[in-house]
Amino acid sequence: MAGRARSEQGPGSRQRLLTAAVTMLARQGYEATTVNGIALEGAAPMGSFYFHFPGGKEEIGVAALGYGAQKFADRLTEVLGQGSSLADALAGVAHWLADELAASEWADGCPIATTALESVTCSAALRAAAAAGFDLWCDVIAGRLRAGGLPEEAATELAINALSLIEGAELLARTQASPDPLRRAAAALRTLAAAADPAPAR
Amino acid sequence: MAGRARSEQGPGSRQRLLTAAVTMLARQGYEATTVNGIALEGAAPMGSFYFHFPGGKEEIGVAALGYGAQKFADRLTEVLGQGSSLADALAGVAHWLADELAASEWADGCPIATTALESVTCSAALRAAAAAGFDLWCDVIAGRLRAGGLPEEAATELAINALSLIEGAELLARTQASPDPLRRAAAALRTLAAAADPAPAR
Repeated sequence: MAGRARSEQGPGSRQRLLTAAVTMLARQGYEATTVNGIALEGAAPMGSFYFHFPGGKEEIGVAALGYGAQKFADRLTEVLGQGSSLADALAGVAHWLADELAASEWADGCPIATTALESVTCSAALRAAAAAGFDLWCDVIAGRLRAGGLPEEAATELAINALSLIEGAELLARTQASPDPLRRAAAALRTLAAAADPAPAR
Repeated sequence: MAGRARSEQGPGSRQRLLTAAVTMLARQGYEATTVNGIALEGAAPMGSFYFHFPGGKEEIGVAALGYGAQKFADRLTEVLGQGSSLADALAGVAHWLADELAASEWADGCPIATTALESVTCSAALRAAAAAGFDLWCDVIAGRLRAGGLPEEAATELAINALSLIEGAELLARTQASPDPLRRAAAALRTLAAAADPAPAR
């Protein structure tokens, strides 16, 4: 019993619960996700759930938005690093998301967007966690743009617009079950990058 | 009694229920919205609700997405008609939404987006209604762009990218409780319009 209790309260079960919550928030949003569902998906008993997240659904929701945002930021950094020009880097993100979304049959969308929209009227803590996630991604994109030679304000402006375009195109792509909006966003990102950086070489 | 039954089953109560549902879906999404909540907000008894929407929550959800999409399309047509150039027309939409969102204290967002994201894993009918709404808005924007002189394919491409940008910027603006992403989107829309239409005069 002591061994079992330890394993249910160890970092493994916390990690499984968090991973399950990230997937469920990305697929169906916060409202449709239940504490029981997360525990089932994370293969953890309810006692373990409340040991790790005594604040219940809102607490794991906030933690999952933070964890999902960081995981996406890591992948974003990787993909942005593969493009040799700023236009290639931004367009590459749109194509990557189109491929991933299609591969998951339109299920695995943005880890933040659905919960963010739901949170506005229901939870200040969730909304703050979602806003922090979007800020993190903007910083990642702006960092790549500055490294590629854009001045600070131009990098910030392009990063915010790139994130808006990608989020909106992903919303349309998921709803229409088509990669088309993300493919077209890639072309628009090239246009915006060219306008921000008239002499591209990076 | 006959009079009361008539008024509860007349077009007035259907309209009130639909208007209530549109507002609730825009503010909190589909999952957090209940049939009881819609009936309460629409000042209609449950008997009236099920008279008009025997299919329950999914049926009124589909109807509300269609009604909300048409109402937004009408406003969009108006705002797009006010800009004398294509750049002004598209930027005007972003500024209009920034003003409306701020005036509602970030509550009244897109009438489709939250439900669209939630619907992917829960209802094919809702998802189809959401996709039809986005298609309608794309058609409205593309129509304005063609009327302003853009060839068909350029108008379609710019319309889809404009809608993605506006939807994404509205998602960020609501989450961050700031008009900034929509103000910046207005500038990006000008850039995209200029690239699609190198000799603007309309």
